[in-house]
Amino acid sequence: MAFKRRAVRLLLTVSLVLALHPANAQTPASAGPVDPALMQDLVVANRVLTDLNVIDGFGHVSMRHPADPNRYLMGRSLAPALVTADDILEYDLDSNPVDARGRASFLERFIHGEIYKARPDVKAVVHTHSPGIIPFGASNVPLRPIFHLGAFLAPDVPVFDIRDAAGTTNMLVSTPQLGKALADTLGSRNVALMRGHGSVVVAATIPMAVFRAHYSNVNAQLQSQALALGGTVTYLQNDESQKTLAVIDQIHGRAWDLWKRAALEKMPGK
Amino acid sequence: MAFKRRAVRLLLTVSLVLALHPANAQTPASAGPVDPALMQDLVVANRVLTDLNVIDGFGHVSMRHPADPNRYLMGRSLAPALVTADDILEYDLDSNPVDARGRASFLERFIHGEIYKARPDVKAVVHTHSPGIIPFGASNVPLRPIFHLGAFLAPDVPVFDIRDAAGTTNMLVSTPQLGKALADTLGSRNVALMRGHGSVVVAATIPMAVFRAHYSNVNAQLQSQALALGGTVTYLQNDESQKTLAVIDQIHGRAWDLWKRAALEKMPGK
Amino acid sequence: MAFKRRAVRLLLTVSLVLALHPANAQTPASAGPVDPALMQDLVVANRVLTDLNVIDGFGHVSMRHPADPNRYLMGRSLAPALVTADDILEYDLDSNPVDARGRASFLERFIHGEIYKARPDVKAVVHTHSPGIIPFGASNVPLRPIFHLGAFLAPDVPVFDIRDAAGTTNMLVSTPQLGKALADTLGSRNVALMRGHGSVVVAATIPMAVFRAHYSNVNAQLQSQALALGGTVTYLQNDESQKTLAVIDQIHGRAWDLWKRAALEKMPGK
Amino acid sequence: MAFKRRAVRLLLTVSLVLALHPANAQTPASAGPVDPALMQDLVVANRVLTDLNVIDGFGHVSMRHPADPNRYLMGRSLAPALVTADDILEYDLDSNPVDARGRASFLERFIHGEIYKARPDVKAVVHTHSPGIIPFGASNVPLRPIFHLGAFLAPDVPVFDIRDAAGTTNMLVSTPQLGKALADTLGSRNVALMRGHGSVVVAATIPMAVFRAHYSNVNAQLQSQALALGGTVTYLQNDESQKTLAVIDQIHGRAWDLWKRAALEKMPGK
Repeated sequence: MAFKRRAVRLLLTVSLVLALHPANAQTPASAGPVDPALMQDLVVANRVLTDLNVIDGFGHVSMRHPADPNRYLMGRSLAPALVTADDILEYDLDSNPVDARGRASFLERFIHGEIYKARPDVKAVVHTHSPGIIPFGASNVPLRPIFHLGAFLAPDVPVFDIRDAAGTTNMLVSTPQLGKALADTLGSRNVALMRGHGSVVVAATIPMAVFRAHYSNVNAQLQSQALALGGTVTYLQNDESQKTLAVIDQIHGRAWDLWKRAALEKMPGK
Repeated sequence: MAFKRRAVRLLLTVSLVLALHPANAQTPASAGPVDPALMQDLVVANRVLTDLNVIDGFGHVSMRHPADPNRYLMGRSLAPALVTADDILEYDLDSNPVDARGRASFLERFIHGEIYKARPDVKAVVHTHSPGIIPFGASNVPLRPIFHLGAFLAPDVPVFDIRDAAGTTNMLVSTPQLGKALADTLGSRNVALMRGHGSVVVAATIPMAVFRAHYSNVNAQLQSQALALGGTVTYLQNDESQKTLAVIDQIHGRAWDLWKRAALEKMPGK
Repeated sequence: MAFKRRAVRLLLTVSLVLALHPANAQTPASAGPVDPALMQDLVVANRVLTDLNVIDGFGHVSMRHPADPNRYLMGRSLAPALVTADDILEYDLDSNPVDARGRASFLERFIHGEIYKARPDVKAVVHTHSPGIIPFGASNVPLRPIFHLGAFLAPDVPVFDIRDAAGTTNMLVSTPQLGKALADTLGSRNVALMRGHGSVVVAATIPMAVFRAHYSNVNAQLQSQALALGGTVTYLQNDESQKTLAVIDQIHGRAWDLWKRAALEKMPGK
Repeated sequence: MAFKRRAVRLLLTVSLVLALHPANAQTPASAGPVDPALMQDLVVANRVLTDLNVIDGFGHVSMRHPADPNRYLMGRSLAPALVTADDILEYDLDSNPVDARGRASFLERFIHGEIYKARPDVKAVVHTHSPGIIPFGASNVPLRPIFHLGAFLAPDVPVFDIRDAAGTTNMLVSTPQLGKALADTLGSRNVALMRGHGSVVVAATIPMAVFRAHYSNVNAQLQSQALALGGTVTYLQNDESQKTLAVIDQIHGRAWDLWKRAALEKMPGK
């Protein structure tokens, strides 16, 4: 046991060194330019998530390249509120940048790459430190859907404890191995919590990923308040949640339109 | 029992299909134009409720047509913060649009139509997902008036559980039958909570409906905080609440004037 | 007992009728114009208290007339955020307006008049429905100073229950008798809570009254959070609070300067 | 015992009188001008901490003089949101101003001077009354790192009770002796709470001090919410926190860049 754990740690350390060493990183080919409207949505998602207090100076959002499922797009290492189209970098699914142009990448980009590998249905990924979410990641009280707009939290929200994957760490999902472990915990679900850290949220589109990231946070706060009342709390039943997913599919664009318009109004030159 | 429930579900499904099928919807006649000042109040109510965080990208507010009690007016399917006079549609009390002009209606407009049918005294209806309210809708702890501005919550606030009306659903009040069941739960009261969803608030005017929607949410948050103190909480007695209703009638315009002015200042072209 | 209570109610009803009937109200003489700088502070206090979320569309702030201790000044019945110098009315200590100029007065002006009668040291009064405060007014958990800026809450904060003074009411301090009962409960203290309603805060200057109204609300929220942690809470000892009062005297102008500047920047034509 | 305590109090009183009496204060020599970029960071830190709701009209931030470890720089007695470069005063480590230019100094500047004396590694100090922090200072529930961005709270956060140092006081750290007692409680840590008052936060740079002041407050609020859920809470282990410190070193500039940019945009003439 002890030997196995030490071996895993050695492997992680070596991987980390390799990942951080530019000379050892492959330089993948680009999948080509992206539809400007989609690119704008990615930029806007950075702003919207900040406006909604889902992310602050940290956190990130990515999308799978529309022309190549083996590439994804994400801002360089920068506060999301400051991201413009020029700050978006392209990565392969091992999270090597296609052309970093001398710019730093997020240490935790492996969250995105490994989820895109494991989940062909996922086209957008958000990583948050949302204030409503972190308490649930640190508690043994499970996050559950308390209202219809949180139905995507069914059937359950797993908690990824990095300690189970790699013992004592710096808490960051900063290697492919850790990204894969997180993707394994996420499985086929929409949201996973990360103990002592935050959450990861996935969806088939950017507007839906933003919707889920926001309403995860809202649902968490509502659930906290309901529990604090001291009575019995009734959550959505699983079959109710399943039926409600179609409603969210149908209506979530209404919120996205509102958020996007507000974000664009504040962007210079738009 | 099982047969009866299946019959009810079948009926609901058929009704839903019919309601959604334009060819089967009656096209009612219009009750004519509305006083622009009243129309402005309806538009402003959408903005005010958003500014007060009573509604977000979802939620809606309607008013009964001043010239015809069998018609009501409400924004098309759009985030309330974006509603202008041009977005207001007219409906009959079965919630058929008079002239949809190709615009989508809220799936839950039946909340409004069925309450207007059941309650001749009601001239304005608000449907919310307010953050203070949802915890009480999910808890067995009843919402009660904790200060004078919440007196309209007396004598009690019922909770509508859609499961009691129709078993497993998508949580939306999206048929006349569900709207009627909600109206039945509301009865003669001012506010009803909706389990796992939000609330419905009614009044004889738009300013009073907005007042009640806002102070329902405020009262809920104050009650949560009072309960969290861990001591005994004293609520308004029913006879106190009854006497306080006249005070609210007298003073609520002071808040409306403030909210309306702030909303108008932010509206373009006003 | 029953007879006495009925007699008291009759007396209150008659008093209310008389107070509301203009023909029976005395028209007192004015104490003359007020230093514009002081008048500005009164107007600004209305804005500052709104900006600090201490008051909303309701609540009021008054000051004793600097030239005549038997007069006080307060805005007409209007949301505080909208008050300008032109909206300030002068009252005698029975709360009769000197010259109402056809404008409505606050129903609860007797809070102010009766406190000015009972407390010659008081030059400014604030009446609030602050969100931190109302839970303590409804709970048997006492509000206590949890940090140095709440030291003025020592030695204790009484709770005025209008039911004790007048049985079932509309919750408003809308007669001289109720104002006097509230002043009696306040005694020589700086703050009194009002069950199911809000608070009253007094001081020798407008900046100090605003300071105390704000930090009452802040202290209440901090105390709520400390209690929610579930451990033992240590409050300021009375002798610590007494010593700290001199500190607050010395430093409270620093906050007032900041708040006033921010409020003036937002006032049109200033 | 009683004699000793009285002697300590007498000494404190005498010291306070001497400290407040300009004639007895030494006038130290200046260490010379400061790099304008660093000076701007100090000014900006005042604004950022206000924007983040870490400080309000009170609280302060200082930096050690880059040219002389025996001098430090801090705003005059003024609300931090109003501080400009012209308001920055220079002090020796006994907290005597080099040239007060007739301006008042913070009564609690000894917090800064005594910590700079005791901690050569510290180059920036923040004193806060943060809303998340005060409940923990008043409670026996310890503040602990609940997420990676709070790792600097390890291994523990001591609580300074001024009563232990000097019996009944006005709660202010207004003498060198009290400053030294606080520095002793802080020891080699990054953060100390102050019972009934607030906190002190230290770092090797201004951006890191601001980061720690903000995320102390955030961590406190997250921990409160996690405790309120009623389950078991898992904190960062000490070895996790130690490893995470290097991450924070690496990434904290990303938040500072965002905060600084937003603050500069709001500063007149910038």
